[in-house]
Amino acid sequence: MRYDFGSDNTAGMAPSAVEGLVRANDGFARAYGADDVTARAADQIRQRLDADAEVRFVFSGTAANAIALSMLAFPFEAVLAHNAAHVCTDETGAPGFFGHGLGLIGLPGFSGKIDPLALKAQLDEPEVGHRQPPAALSLTQATEYGAVYSEEELRHLIEPVKLRGHGVHLDGARLANAAAAGFDLKDIARLGVDVLVFGGAKAGANCAEAIVLFDKSLARRLDNRLKQAGQTASKARFLAGPMLGLLESGDWEAGGAHANLMAQRLAEGVATRSRFVLAHPVEANAVFVRMPAEAHARLNALGWACYAFDDGSVRFVCSWATTTEAVDELIEAVAGLE
Amino acid sequence: MRYDFGSDNTAGMAPSAVEGLVRANDGFARAYGADDVTARAADQIRQRLDADAEVRFVFSGTAANAIALSMLAFPFEAVLAHNAAHVCTDETGAPGFFGHGLGLIGLPGFSGKIDPLALKAQLDEPEVGHRQPPAALSLTQATEYGAVYSEEELRHLIEPVKLRGHGVHLDGARLANAAAAGFDLKDIARLGVDVLVFGGAKAGANCAEAIVLFDKSLARRLDNRLKQAGQTASKARFLAGPMLGLLESGDWEAGGAHANLMAQRLAEGVATRSRFVLAHPVEANAVFVRMPAEAHARLNALGWACYAFDDGSVRFVCSWATTTEAVDELIEAVAGLE
Amino acid sequence: MRYDFGSDNTAGMAPSAVEGLVRANDGFARAYGADDVTARAADQIRQRLDADAEVRFVFSGTAANAIALSMLAFPFEAVLAHNAAHVCTDETGAPGFFGHGLGLIGLPGFSGKIDPLALKAQLDEPEVGHRQPPAALSLTQATEYGAVYSEEELRHLIEPVKLRGHGVHLDGARLANAAAAGFDLKDIARLGVDVLVFGGAKAGANCAEAIVLFDKSLARRLDNRLKQAGQTASKARFLAGPMLGLLESGDWEAGGAHANLMAQRLAEGVATRSRFVLAHPVEANAVFVRMPAEAHARLNALGWACYAFDDGSVRFVCSWATTTEAVDELIEAVAGLE
Amino acid sequence: MRYDFGSDNTAGMAPSAVEGLVRANDGFARAYGADDVTARAADQIRQRLDADAEVRFVFSGTAANAIALSMLAFPFEAVLAHNAAHVCTDETGAPGFFGHGLGLIGLPGFSGKIDPLALKAQLDEPEVGHRQPPAALSLTQATEYGAVYSEEELRHLIEPVKLRGHGVHLDGARLANAAAAGFDLKDIARLGVDVLVFGGAKAGANCAEAIVLFDKSLARRLDNRLKQAGQTASKARFLAGPMLGLLESGDWEAGGAHANLMAQRLAEGVATRSRFVLAHPVEANAVFVRMPAEAHARLNALGWACYAFDDGSVRFVCSWATTTEAVDELIEAVAGLE
Repeated sequence: MRYDFGSDNTAGMAPSAVEGLVRANDGFARAYGADDVTARAADQIRQRLDADAEVRFVFSGTAANAIALSMLAFPFEAVLAHNAAHVCTDETGAPGFFGHGLGLIGLPGFSGKIDPLALKAQLDEPEVGHRQPPAALSLTQATEYGAVYSEEELRHLIEPVKLRGHGVHLDGARLANAAAAGFDLKDIARLGVDVLVFGGAKAGANCAEAIVLFDKSLARRLDNRLKQAGQTASKARFLAGPMLGLLESGDWEAGGAHANLMAQRLAEGVATRSRFVLAHPVEANAVFVRMPAEAHARLNALGWACYAFDDGSVRFVCSWATTTEAVDELIEAVAGLE
Repeated sequence: MRYDFGSDNTAGMAPSAVEGLVRANDGFARAYGADDVTARAADQIRQRLDADAEVRFVFSGTAANAIALSMLAFPFEAVLAHNAAHVCTDETGAPGFFGHGLGLIGLPGFSGKIDPLALKAQLDEPEVGHRQPPAALSLTQATEYGAVYSEEELRHLIEPVKLRGHGVHLDGARLANAAAAGFDLKDIARLGVDVLVFGGAKAGANCAEAIVLFDKSLARRLDNRLKQAGQTASKARFLAGPMLGLLESGDWEAGGAHANLMAQRLAEGVATRSRFVLAHPVEANAVFVRMPAEAHARLNALGWACYAFDDGSVRFVCSWATTTEAVDELIEAVAGLE
Repeated sequence: MRYDFGSDNTAGMAPSAVEGLVRANDGFARAYGADDVTARAADQIRQRLDADAEVRFVFSGTAANAIALSMLAFPFEAVLAHNAAHVCTDETGAPGFFGHGLGLIGLPGFSGKIDPLALKAQLDEPEVGHRQPPAALSLTQATEYGAVYSEEELRHLIEPVKLRGHGVHLDGARLANAAAAGFDLKDIARLGVDVLVFGGAKAGANCAEAIVLFDKSLARRLDNRLKQAGQTASKARFLAGPMLGLLESGDWEAGGAHANLMAQRLAEGVATRSRFVLAHPVEANAVFVRMPAEAHARLNALGWACYAFDDGSVRFVCSWATTTEAVDELIEAVAGLE
Repeated sequence: MRYDFGSDNTAGMAPSAVEGLVRANDGFARAYGADDVTARAADQIRQRLDADAEVRFVFSGTAANAIALSMLAFPFEAVLAHNAAHVCTDETGAPGFFGHGLGLIGLPGFSGKIDPLALKAQLDEPEVGHRQPPAALSLTQATEYGAVYSEEELRHLIEPVKLRGHGVHLDGARLANAAAAGFDLKDIARLGVDVLVFGGAKAGANCAEAIVLFDKSLARRLDNRLKQAGQTASKARFLAGPMLGLLESGDWEAGGAHANLMAQRLAEGVATRSRFVLAHPVEANAVFVRMPAEAHARLNALGWACYAFDDGSVRFVCSWATTTEAVDELIEAVAGLE
């Protein structure tokens, strides 16, 4: 069975995450997030971000993102996002569901990074009553196409948005990979992000993401908001425990670095050994390869799970669990395609 | 530390649930519920219910109930429920959030059981455009006040509802306790329940409940519905794994039986040793005691977590993890109150 | 045909309202509320309220109230209202629909006036994550049971609410009747109401109410909000024109005064001539009479439309169009009932 | 003042509509649509459509369309529509608001007509849980770009949609213009449309549209649905009265024919007298002219209200109230632009 490159969700929990869960299971604990494990995991995140933020653990990135956007835009407003962003293409319209009709305005840009000129053009559109005007910007770090924004790139996107009084959301489902690629987590607060989704699942936790609110005015009655939205864990320690295990052990970082390294190895192998070209720079844990549908189908038939993306290229994702053996074997397989 | 009677959510995962999770963690697995562990856990539930139902695992009972109700009633309709039901009092209006304004009509009845005459009176109300007419009935088994409906009682509630073409939801957060009290799980399908929430968390899982659809017409595009609602697990095996552990080992049943036994022991001790009276029959895992606020406060001060309920009595909840030592110690403490 | 006491909605448009509409129909006019008629009608309202408020005309009181409440409370919060308020009993859950699950907390009190102690008790409830905490107070002037709050009564309700930072909504569907009863419209802004619904339909307009925002921070992107909610009139002059006719002519006030006078006449006649007693003080345009169901049915059979209310009494409503002949005839009919 | 070509919403009510309103104002009438005027107006519409449909009058096309779509698609589904359709571009996301997150999938096609191949491609997309699959098709007749579908064109769009069990909505804001262009209204039911919005405002009414349900199963508890959505008129006769006036007099048809004739005259004048070319065939009441921004600005400065559309052309709309003098004067003005 070789279907390990389909997604970073096909990997299991990292050993330190399992240990964190087992440790959290000791005895009785207060419910609904009032327990010690949850507090410690939140502290771990605040330390990394160097910010006194409100932190809550939720079950799903889809819910985390959608709830974040519903904090930043009213139903009659819209959120600006890359048109390949997960919130636009892969969350079944959750922003509109949690946001009661809230709109999304898709923006273009290479490799999932928003083009600053396209952003500016949208911000400069005159407001009219019959359209949903922008109220927030949603960014993804690392992007859906495996690129990592520099601090300067982010600043050029965030500044004009904040100048207009709009909010900023950062989808950090693959934040561990961005960090491993050199992105400084402390920049998130410094740049003025209002709400961060700090990724756990793709980093080796079970299903757990953290909503991080730098703008504490958004946190009013946050527990009511999350409870109503079905995102309050009664046994919260089992959300926070695996995160705590990953974070205290340093595996959150180490796993991201390993995944990126595997992606680099794969990219180099494909570039040098096969006739296919890379579709995007490989800066995080995903490799996008331009290949004909027949070659893709053949690879699938050989047992390698991987998906064609909206840009037509085929995506291979590495995770904390990807082995060099698997990468090398995949390179061979790709090199062997005609 | 004695705060173990506050809720059945303060207990951890049962050993078989942890083992189920660890076993599920082996290697790579397909994401979003297409894995083998999820399929096997669903089979376990179908077997218990003796029904060919659609089963999905979600993270929270609040979401499970609210999504279920949104399947059975439009926003301009209402759901009939006991006015002490969890959906009415403890879910921060989640039915209205997931159901886009869907209404709840509270019904009276002893110990959390709906009074059939009150139900009938509501069903017989003439429909008018300016009110939300009933479209479904929501039941809770075991009830919020620790009572267990008999098959006959359920039938008398469900029949008039089905006759009018309305749907039926059963909140089974404490279904394991109801089963241990003699309720036959096979009656659920036989009685015509459309959507069941099969409880995991209170039975010893992590945060996991199953939505069970007996009426398969409700299951159309169910995966889209759950994904949009933030209730699709990317790493679904970590929702299903602990459930599978509990179900294959028989601990789902055994834990419920143990919790009920502890509640019986506590109830008898309180009834015979203290000056306080029980507020409700003790048929499942909760004991409600009428005591003055001062006595309650004193008990809390002694380290016993327990809450006053809307009927004024104080609730003590037992779980799979409650020990006879803890129960006996609590009886002493209650007996010692003046 | 005598069914004229069923509601103040069965009356037509007052002559000055029809004239206002016909005058507004002259030539071309800018759409979506940018026309002169709309501006002048808004000015008329601002003058009466002695406040520099934002004014928008919408089609329905149900929508106006629900949109107002959605401005004051998040979905995970609740609005405090009299349990007989129109928003609670007669708008098919519209607050939950426009407010995405927003809750309503019903309060008791005589004749539709909220009991200040009941209000205080709710405000003093400790906040918990699993319930929807209050975020606003909704008042009705005149009340559903035909009573009119004094300035002092309103102050005692509004002050504790504003002290906690909550918002205040006033449903003025029958504001013209309250004004005729001596309520000073300038008190509305002075007392700290945030959003007023200024009634038109029951005062002799077609279907038109004005949303009046004293707290202008709520007015941000208001036109987008109303457009999305289906409450923006393309041909806005036909909403504002009849209102302008009523307001410029003084018929808004005169019609309210006439309706109240008719109610007084009816109340006195019933009290002195019949064996039935009044259920509520008659301060505005409605008369509530305690009568057995048989007597009520007999009256209906005689051609007098009137409805039994939730308190069991039978309501008779007068309007700008009610004649003394009709009132006197009704008195005879009631007096003749056995 | 010459701003008469900006929209068909800048025209007033046609004389027969005003007469209809005045006639409807006689005496008392039952509220909430139970009156005779409403019944007769609905009959007029059913006759034109030759179908036994449910008819309700509502205040706004935005609400009518959004409510219609919410009947045909769940929040986790999407509606297919031309990407220039009013529901996509001009209703501030109302479909998502009334539909609780319901998605829209924009389709291309000339002059606002959906390209059948693009439709087929979308219908053939494999369903995945993380996207909103199509559940309905929304058509506009006449289109936003002034084109009119033939019966055959509609059939080729509707058939594949119905084959998959999906619903069909027709936005008939300018249905009178389509009818005047030769479209047979009886085809609407024959072709399998489920919900029609029968336009009143642009045809000379006040703000009134009719929701017409051919699929009566959608009409269950329709009055509750409309009331909750703020679209139930208490004084319904003032919605239906003007419609009745237009329909009984034949002015609904005559006004549409006049508007189309004026558009033809304008189009011919522009084509023959000016240097500008038409952007779309002129089949209904709008003329789209390709002109540089400077020419457009100059025309506005001369007092001619007209707007640039998303395709870059400038739109001139004629209505029942447009005069040949105004058209000829406008032609002169356009011809005079350099």
